[in-house]
Amino acid sequence: MSSNEIRSEIRLSFDHRVIFSENIFSVSNPLLADVLSQTNESTVSVSLFIDGGVVQFNSSLLEKIQNYFDFYSKRIQLVSLPFVVPGGEPAKNDEKLFRELINVMHDAKLCRHSYVLAVGGGAVLDSVCFAASIVHRGIRQVRIPTTVLAQNDAGIGIKNGIDLFGKKNFLGTFYPPFAVINDCFLLLSLNDREWRNGMAEAVKVALIRDPEFFCWIEENADSLVCRDMNAMKILIRRCAELHLRHIELGGDPFERGSMRPLDFGHWAAHKLEHLSGFKIGHGHAVAVGIAIDVIYSCLKKHLSFNEAQRILSCLIRLGFDLGVAELQIAHPITGSLLLLEGLSEFREHIGGKLCITLLSGIGKPLEVDEVDTAIIVKAVHGLIKKQEKVHTSAECSSVLSVQ
Amino acid sequence: MSSNEIRSEIRLSFDHRVIFSENIFSVSNPLLADVLSQTNESTVSVSLFIDGGVVQFNSSLLEKIQNYFDFYSKRIQLVSLPFVVPGGEPAKNDEKLFRELINVMHDAKLCRHSYVLAVGGGAVLDSVCFAASIVHRGIRQVRIPTTVLAQNDAGIGIKNGIDLFGKKNFLGTFYPPFAVINDCFLLLSLNDREWRNGMAEAVKVALIRDPEFFCWIEENADSLVCRDMNAMKILIRRCAELHLRHIELGGDPFERGSMRPLDFGHWAAHKLEHLSGFKIGHGHAVAVGIAIDVIYSCLKKHLSFNEAQRILSCLIRLGFDLGVAELQIAHPITGSLLLLEGLSEFREHIGGKLCITLLSGIGKPLEVDEVDTAIIVKAVHGLIKKQEKVHTSAECSSVLSVQ
Repeated sequence: MSSNEIRSEIRLSFDHRVIFSENIFSVSNPLLADVLSQTNESTVSVSLFIDGGVVQFNSSLLEKIQNYFDFYSKRIQLVSLPFVVPGGEPAKNDEKLFRELINVMHDAKLCRHSYVLAVGGGAVLDSVCFAASIVHRGIRQVRIPTTVLAQNDAGIGIKNGIDLFGKKNFLGTFYPPFAVINDCFLLLSLNDREWRNGMAEAVKVALIRDPEFFCWIEENADSLVCRDMNAMKILIRRCAELHLRHIELGGDPFERGSMRPLDFGHWAAHKLEHLSGFKIGHGHAVAVGIAIDVIYSCLKKHLSFNEAQRILSCLIRLGFDLGVAELQIAHPITGSLLLLEGLSEFREHIGGKLCITLLSGIGKPLEVDEVDTAIIVKAVHGLIKKQEKVHTSAECSSVLSVQ
Repeated sequence: MSSNEIRSEIRLSFDHRVIFSENIFSVSNPLLADVLSQTNESTVSVSLFIDGGVVQFNSSLLEKIQNYFDFYSKRIQLVSLPFVVPGGEPAKNDEKLFRELINVMHDAKLCRHSYVLAVGGGAVLDSVCFAASIVHRGIRQVRIPTTVLAQNDAGIGIKNGIDLFGKKNFLGTFYPPFAVINDCFLLLSLNDREWRNGMAEAVKVALIRDPEFFCWIEENADSLVCRDMNAMKILIRRCAELHLRHIELGGDPFERGSMRPLDFGHWAAHKLEHLSGFKIGHGHAVAVGIAIDVIYSCLKKHLSFNEAQRILSCLIRLGFDLGVAELQIAHPITGSLLLLEGLSEFREHIGGKLCITLLSGIGKPLEVDEVDTAIIVKAVHGLIKKQEKVHTSAECSSVLSVQ
């Protein structure tokens, strides 16, 4: 057969950069202009897409950005009016909006050497960058994440996407951005809920990759809750490093084989978000998802009672409400928890066999290819019982006492 | 700045295979089942998308394919009804149809380890594979091209796409297929026009990559026109080799920098297709586009009169009508040829500066970054004058005599 086949190996290499800076839209900070113009001799064309939530809480930001482009007008140029994208998960659940993003990129006559500048939370970055990744088979993207979640997780990866059929990221691509710029000044206007939610992904990645980082989070939980920016900067940077290392060294960055993404706690999280009509934010849902898989790991005797308690206690100290009402939505006829559908949807999205990450210890992920749904239900009931907020370690230990 | 930046290099490697076989849907040929099941232990899920034109001229094909899957049912399984896609460029110009492809892939519950089997001409492969490349961020694709054009060019590359805003491939991705299978039996039912059109891409790639191959085409033009299958198999294989080598060794397979795709003659071709409402097929348009750029190269003294004549004469012997009416469609107010808009649209699609490939000899591409539109118009008028078919070498030389 060899003579009847032409086989070639296509090798690709992308530079992936996450840059940390402050006050990036101040004319005294040339970083953004430098990044955008680094590979071009002439003025580069840029279209700006910005999260409505960011504009709402930073009323002068659009003007500041315009001033910035005016100041650096020899090198960078806005070729379309700033497009304000409604923030949050609705940004990923609106086909008309998605088509509008494409229209704007078309009207701006962007080409593969132009730039889409996406400023916002994870959902806005996901939908804008998905659109940019398919226009002309890929426009360069510079992402400026504006939430904790986006700066430490969603915004710094190489995936994008929109939801369809009620399924998270049903459509999307793997498309490495030209650059990601994390500006901690953008976090100042977050409300407490947004500030907190992003920390769930830090707990997640610490639990499966870096036990020392988990200890650091435990030790610094109070500072983090009190919005100590220096603590938050450390948390975001460590998360970003762990993420990039995973993408770089995991061996399968486009997940075409069976590489697991960093998705501990995510099978339940995706479903909970959907069941709540996206009232539960992604970070919050991930915290609940982690709690379920931690209790399950403990009930299955993979994880010690003590470690499970430490994890739940840490999530509670960070301020997460783990006993959300959506956990108990049942199928009207069969009575089974709708949450459990998340297992098959998760398998379908990743492909191949079911593969769920559990813990055999803090920093010790354990992959299993089957799940005992009766015990999942037991774990969920432990959280449901505590539908009133679980505030103290004592309550946390009573959640675990379902075992 | 270094401490304020995390930089990583993302490396990817894809196997790209083009396999040549015969009668692949006959149960006596296990190739397709082998390819589909090679990485899976259990039965693999497959959804079939097939070109309406192929079904029309191979009335028993769907039954044959069903028999094939029945025979190999332990290893491969059709998980949705075969979906018949209207063939030709309309397949890429119908947003509703595109959405329907996505619906079918959703309803079939395909995952990243399932397969989309796309059987058809270049347009059908382009739209089906674009849909498959964004569902769950990429379903595995096996392409079975059914036209000369698709087997030697469109179907074997790593690009896909659909048209929007009247622009070819405005949306699309780079997505290496799992495998491409070329079956020469599928060419038997092509009409003469389809048989001929695919040869334009062979002339194109020969002119810019392989002068010996161009001589071979000249020598074998009569056999090719008379549908000598052995000659066609040689032509397709050589084309495929040149293409794959370009993707593998060009250094920029996703065209993120400034690598030129193999697009000699294509700026005019894309525009002509659009101006004709896609009545002019892609291959035919490429032949006309080559003729324009050859005459232009000659008028600009890059290419010798003798070589230009040889090329035009070869295209004419292959049966191409070079003086299509669409060449002379003018702007109602300015009177300028609409064809010329193809130059800026071409630049916009590829990105960066205009870059047009000319010839300084057979096998000698010459890239230029500006074009003298007055001389393009002169070249076009040379062809327009011959709006009746240009049949002979004598006529061809009179086209060139506009110089």
